[in-house]
Amino acid sequence: MDIVSPQNSRVKEWAQLLEKKHRTRQHKYIIEGIHLVQEALRAQADLECIVYDGEQGVPTELAGLEGPLQLEWISVSPAVIAKCTDTMTPQPVFAIVRKGREPLESLLSEERGLVVVLDGVQDPGNVGTIIRSADAAGAAGVVLGAGSADVYNPKTIRSTMGSLFHLPIVEGQLESMLPEAKAAGVKLVSTSLQAEYSCYSYDFTQSVWLVIGNEGKGISESTARLVDDAITIPMQGQAESLNAAMAATILMFEAMRQRMV
Amino acid sequence: MDIVSPQNSRVKEWAQLLEKKHRTRQHKYIIEGIHLVQEALRAQADLECIVYDGEQGVPTELAGLEGPLQLEWISVSPAVIAKCTDTMTPQPVFAIVRKGREPLESLLSEERGLVVVLDGVQDPGNVGTIIRSADAAGAAGVVLGAGSADVYNPKTIRSTMGSLFHLPIVEGQLESMLPEAKAAGVKLVSTSLQAEYSCYSYDFTQSVWLVIGNEGKGISESTARLVDDAITIPMQGQAESLNAAMAATILMFEAMRQRMV
Repeated sequence: MDIVSPQNSRVKEWAQLLEKKHRTRQHKYIIEGIHLVQEALRAQADLECIVYDGEQGVPTELAGLEGPLQLEWISVSPAVIAKCTDTMTPQPVFAIVRKGREPLESLLSEERGLVVVLDGVQDPGNVGTIIRSADAAGAAGVVLGAGSADVYNPKTIRSTMGSLFHLPIVEGQLESMLPEAKAAGVKLVSTSLQAEYSCYSYDFTQSVWLVIGNEGKGISESTARLVDDAITIPMQGQAESLNAAMAATILMFEAMRQRMV
Repeated sequence: MDIVSPQNSRVKEWAQLLEKKHRTRQHKYIIEGIHLVQEALRAQADLECIVYDGEQGVPTELAGLEGPLQLEWISVSPAVIAKCTDTMTPQPVFAIVRKGREPLESLLSEERGLVVVLDGVQDPGNVGTIIRSADAAGAAGVVLGAGSADVYNPKTIRSTMGSLFHLPIVEGQLESMLPEAKAAGVKLVSTSLQAEYSCYSYDFTQSVWLVIGNEGKGISESTARLVDDAITIPMQGQAESLNAAMAATILMFEAMRQRMV
C-alpha cells in the first residue's frame, strides 16, 4: 500500500479538489469511478495519477489501459478513498487530472459548427447533462460563461458521463468571446417565449452558437444585446417552461436532425 | 400563530411525509414553496391544508387563490416549517395534498394520445423532469411502473415545477397495464441502440406509449417482451448514450413536431 493515512499531505491536496477554490489554485480536478477514469485514459487527458483501493487492486477494467509513461499508479487504503470522494458509496478508484486550457479558436475552426454557450446555468447536473447531450448531438464544443456552475464540480463531472473528455470546453468571459464568434460569422441564437420563430423553422445548418441562460432568469442583459436570433420551442399543455438542459437538448437534436438530411 | 411547537402531533405527521412509507400509509404528500402551492390551488388538487410561516403571513402570491371552502390555512412558527422541509433554505409555505388515484382509462380516452411510461427510472430528478417535459409536449399522461422513483418524493415534485398537477399520472404494475393499452390499439415503443428505425422516421402520429427504462439497465425483460417497435435516437460524437430524461424529452418533442404538421 503506497499511502495508508488520510492525514498524508498528498491526500489532503487531493481531497481539497472537491472544492472549487482549490481546483482553481491547483489547476487540477478529481474524477471518480472506473468509467470516468477509463474515458480519461482513452481520451488521453492530462492525468497526474490514478489512485486505487489497494485492498481491491487495480480494477480489471483499467488493466489494459496504461496511459502515458509518467503516469503514477498509487495504491491507497479505503480511508484515503473515502476522504477524496463526495459520494456516499465511494468507487474503488479516482484520478487527478491537470486542467487544460482550450482556446476559443478550437470552436471556430469547424465549418458550420454547432456550439452550446452556457450563460449562468447554475445547476451542476444541468451543466453536465448539457455537455453529455452536446457530445451526443455532435456539437463542436461548449462555452462556459463566468456565472455558470463549475465544469469540474464532482456532480457536473458525473453528469457528463465522460463527455467532458470528448469535446472542447472553453471557459471565459462571454462579453469578449461572443463578439469574436460573431466576427467569425457565427449566428448567436437564444430561446425566448416571445420569439416569433419556431426552432423547427430555424435554419440550424449554418454556423450556430446556441445560448442557454440561467434556470430562473434566462440569459443576461449583456448577452441578450449580442444575440442575433431569438427562437421558441413550441409547447403544448400547461407547463410554463422547460428545464434548461431539456431545452438545450431539444435544440441541439433539432440542429442535428436538420444537418443529417 | 396556530402551531408553534415542532413537537405538535400534527407537525410530526406532516414531517413524516418526507418519507415514502409514510406517504403510502397516510395516502398524502407534501409540497413546498409558493409556486407549487399556487399550481396545486389552480389545478384544484385535493388539498388538506396550507401551512405558512406566521411571522411572514400568507404569501401575497396566494392571497387571491382561496381554494375549496373546507381548506385549512394554518400559521406556524419557522421551526415548524424547518421540520417539514428537506431543503436547506425552507420556503415560507407548504401544503398537504391527498393522493388521488388516476385510472388507466384516463390515458386511453384521448385519440392518438402520447403517453410516457417509466419502467424503473430511478433518479427523482429524471422522473420529475420527464413529467415536466411530458406536460410541455402535450402528452396525455405519464405511467409510473413499480420500480421507478416515487413521484411524491420532494425532489421529484420540485423537478416537475408543478406539472404533476397538469396531467394524469398513473401508478401501477406495467405487467397488467401495458397489455391493456395494447388491447386498446396503442403502440408500445422503446429505444434501443441496436434498433433499425430512427425516431425521425417513426410515425408518432398514431397512439403511442413511449417506454423509458432504467438509467443503467434500460427496460425490464417483461416489458421488453411487450414492446411493439424499437427505435433509436441517432447520435454523433462519442457519447455512449443519453441521459434518460433527455432521451424521453427528445422523443416526446419529435412526436409533438410530427403532430403539429
